[in-house]
Amino acid sequence: MVQALNHLRDQIDEVDQQLLDLLQQRIKLVHKVGEVKNQHGLPIYAPEREAAMLAKRRAEAESKGVPPALIEDVLRRVMRESYTSEKDSGFKTINPELGNIVVIGGRGQLGRLFVQMFRLSGYQVDVIGKEDWQQAPELFANAGLVLVSVPINLTEQIIARLDQLPENCILADITSIKAAPLSKMLAVHKGPVVGLHPMFGPDVPSLAKQVIVYADGRGSEQYQWLLQQMAIWGARLHPVDAESHDKAMTLIQSLRHFTSFAYGVHLAQEEADLELLLDLSSPIYRLELAMVGRLFAQSPYLYADIIMASEQSKAMIKRYHNNFGELLKLLENEDKQGFIQAFERVSDWFGEYSEEFLKESRGLLQQANDSRRA
Amino acid sequence: MVQALNHLRDQIDEVDQQLLDLLQQRIKLVHKVGEVKNQHGLPIYAPEREAAMLAKRRAEAESKGVPPALIEDVLRRVMRESYTSEKDSGFKTINPELGNIVVIGGRGQLGRLFVQMFRLSGYQVDVIGKEDWQQAPELFANAGLVLVSVPINLTEQIIARLDQLPENCILADITSIKAAPLSKMLAVHKGPVVGLHPMFGPDVPSLAKQVIVYADGRGSEQYQWLLQQMAIWGARLHPVDAESHDKAMTLIQSLRHFTSFAYGVHLAQEEADLELLLDLSSPIYRLELAMVGRLFAQSPYLYADIIMASEQSKAMIKRYHNNFGELLKLLENEDKQGFIQAFERVSDWFGEYSEEFLKESRGLLQQANDSRRA
Repeated sequence: MVQALNHLRDQIDEVDQQLLDLLQQRIKLVHKVGEVKNQHGLPIYAPEREAAMLAKRRAEAESKGVPPALIEDVLRRVMRESYTSEKDSGFKTINPELGNIVVIGGRGQLGRLFVQMFRLSGYQVDVIGKEDWQQAPELFANAGLVLVSVPINLTEQIIARLDQLPENCILADITSIKAAPLSKMLAVHKGPVVGLHPMFGPDVPSLAKQVIVYADGRGSEQYQWLLQQMAIWGARLHPVDAESHDKAMTLIQSLRHFTSFAYGVHLAQEEADLELLLDLSSPIYRLELAMVGRLFAQSPYLYADIIMASEQSKAMIKRYHNNFGELLKLLENEDKQGFIQAFERVSDWFGEYSEEFLKESRGLLQQANDSRRA
Repeated sequence: MVQALNHLRDQIDEVDQQLLDLLQQRIKLVHKVGEVKNQHGLPIYAPEREAAMLAKRRAEAESKGVPPALIEDVLRRVMRESYTSEKDSGFKTINPELGNIVVIGGRGQLGRLFVQMFRLSGYQVDVIGKEDWQQAPELFANAGLVLVSVPINLTEQIIARLDQLPENCILADITSIKAAPLSKMLAVHKGPVVGLHPMFGPDVPSLAKQVIVYADGRGSEQYQWLLQQMAIWGARLHPVDAESHDKAMTLIQSLRHFTSFAYGVHLAQEEADLELLLDLSSPIYRLELAMVGRLFAQSPYLYADIIMASEQSKAMIKRYHNNFGELLKLLENEDKQGFIQAFERVSDWFGEYSEEFLKESRGLLQQANDSRRA
C-alpha cells in the first residue's frame, strides 16, 4: 500500500510542478497584456471580457470532464494575482497637463493608498499632514486636484480652509459621508467639486473590482479624467446622490459596525470560551466570529467616528434596537406562529435575492472551509 | 495594439488549455489515491499530510517566483474537488458485522445525507418517516445503529419510543442541542449511546474538514467504529460535554440566527433599497447581507426550533438585547470616550485572536471580491 501511495504521490508532485510553471507563465503573459493596455490607457479590469473568457473556459472544462466551477474559481484567483502585479508597472497618466495633486491627510492609511496610486500613474503628489499646514499655500498654487482624506469629524473644518484654491483645481474628498462635505466644498470653492467614497479598506491588494462611489458637486466635464484614471486602476465607479448614499451608509456602515461592536462586548461580558466556540463552529459561524473579531484589531477612533457620524445613524441604530425588542417578545410569548409569519414576510421582501444569496454564500462558505487548518 | 493583445491572448488560451489538462490529471491521480486509501480504511482527509504537502509547494513556488499564497489557494480549491469526487467510489465499511442502520427521519435533508454516506460505506440502511412507524419493530430487531434525525421539538418524544432496541444496538441522535436528548436516550436504552451534532448544513459537497461534535453517553468502545467511519468520510470529530455544547450553541446558533432574523425584519421594515445597498456595498457588507439573506431562503420552522430550543437560548438573546441597549446610551450621550474604552476592553479580551481574524478574513474578503460579477 505504501508503495502504491508513494508512486501516485510522486506523479501528483510532477503535475504540481507543471502547474507551478503554468501559473508563472500565465502571470507573465497577463503582465504583458497589462503593459499593452497601459500604453493605451485601457482599464486593467474589463468586466465583459473577463465574463466572456470565463464562459469559454467553463465550456472547455465541461468538454474535458473538469468541473466548470473549478476552472472558474482557479482562474479568478489567478487573475487577482495579475491585477495585483499591475501596480508594479505603473498606470497611464490620463491627464499629463494637470498640475500637482495635493492629498491632505495623505499619511493616513487610505490617504497613503491614493498617494501611491497617483504616483504610480505619473502625477506629482504632495502630502499635507497636521504638522505642515504652513506649506499649504505654496502647494495649492499649482494644484490641479486637492483631495481631502482626514477623519470624518475633521473633514468640514479642513474643507473650510480651502477657499484659496486655483479656480480650475478639482476639490474632492474621500470621507464616508457625502452630503455635508459636498455642500461645504461647494460653498468654499468655485471650481469643480466631486465627493468620493472608496468602499474598501486600505489593505486591498489592488483596486481591481473595488467600488468607488462618487457624488457630483459641479464641473463634471473637468473631473472626468479623474474617474477615468480610477477606472484604469480597475475600480468600479458608481454615481450616487449624496443623500441616498448617506442614508444607505447608516445601514451599510453605522448599524453593521455597531452590531459587531455590541456582539464583541457581549461575548466578553459573557466570558465566552473563544477556543471552544472555534472548535465547535460551523464555517458560517467561524466567518461571523472573524468578521466581529477583526473589528477589534482596528482603530476604535475610526469606528467611533463612523458610527457617531450623524444623527441619522444614531436614529437607525435605535430603530433596530426597538425592532429587536419587539421580536424578542415573540420568543417570550413562545409565539412560534408569529415568528414564522414575520419570517415569511421578510422572505417575500427579499424575493429572489434570498436564493441568490444562498447560492453565493454557499461558494464562499466552501472556500472558507477549504482554508480550514488543522 | 489589437494585434499585440490578440497574440498575447492566444498564448494565454494555450496556457489555460494546459492548465485544464493538468487539473484533470491531478483529479484522476487523487482519485486513485482515494481508492488505495479506501481499500485500507484510511481517512480521505489527513490534516498533517495536507499541511506538509502545502508547505512544500509554497517553498517550490517561492523559488520559482510564484506567490506562495497563490499555489496554496489553488491547491486547496482543487483538493475540495477531489474530496467531493471521493463519494463516487464509496468508502470502506469499518464495521461489516453490524446489523442494519435505521435512520429515523431519514427523509429530512440532513438525515438523507447520513443515509447516503452510510450506504456509500456499504451498510444496509433503513429509513423510518412519519408514515411508516408501524414497520419500526421489524427494522429495529436486527439494528446495529439507530440514528434519530428529526426536528428538535420532536426529538425527545421520538426517543421515548425507543425502549425496545437490541441491547448492543447503538442509539445516537443528530439534534443541535445535546443535553436533553442524551439524558433521554440514556434513560430509555441500556446499550451504547452517543449524541452527535454535525456542524454543517445538508448542502455540503463532501464531509471533508466538516466538524461533527460528539457527546458521550455510554459504551464508547462499542461506538468507536462509528467515529472512525465518520473520520473516513473526512469529518473532524470533536468530543464535548453536552452542557458546554448547549451553552456554546446559545451563542453559535440561537443568538446568531436571531440577530440575522432581526436584521432581515429591520431591513424590510425600513424598506431598504436592496439594489442600492448591493451597488454601494464593500465586499464585507455584501458578505454580511448574503449571510442574512440566505436565512430567508430556508425553512422558518427549522430556525424557529433552533432559536426557541431552550430557555437558555432565550435568556442569552435577552441579555444581548440589554447589552445593546446599554451601549446605545453611549451614542445617545455622545460619549466617544466611553465607546473607546469599551472597545479597548473587548480588544484586550480578544487578545491575539482579533489579529488572526483580521488576517483570515482578509483572505476571505479577497476571495469574495474575486467572485464579484459585473
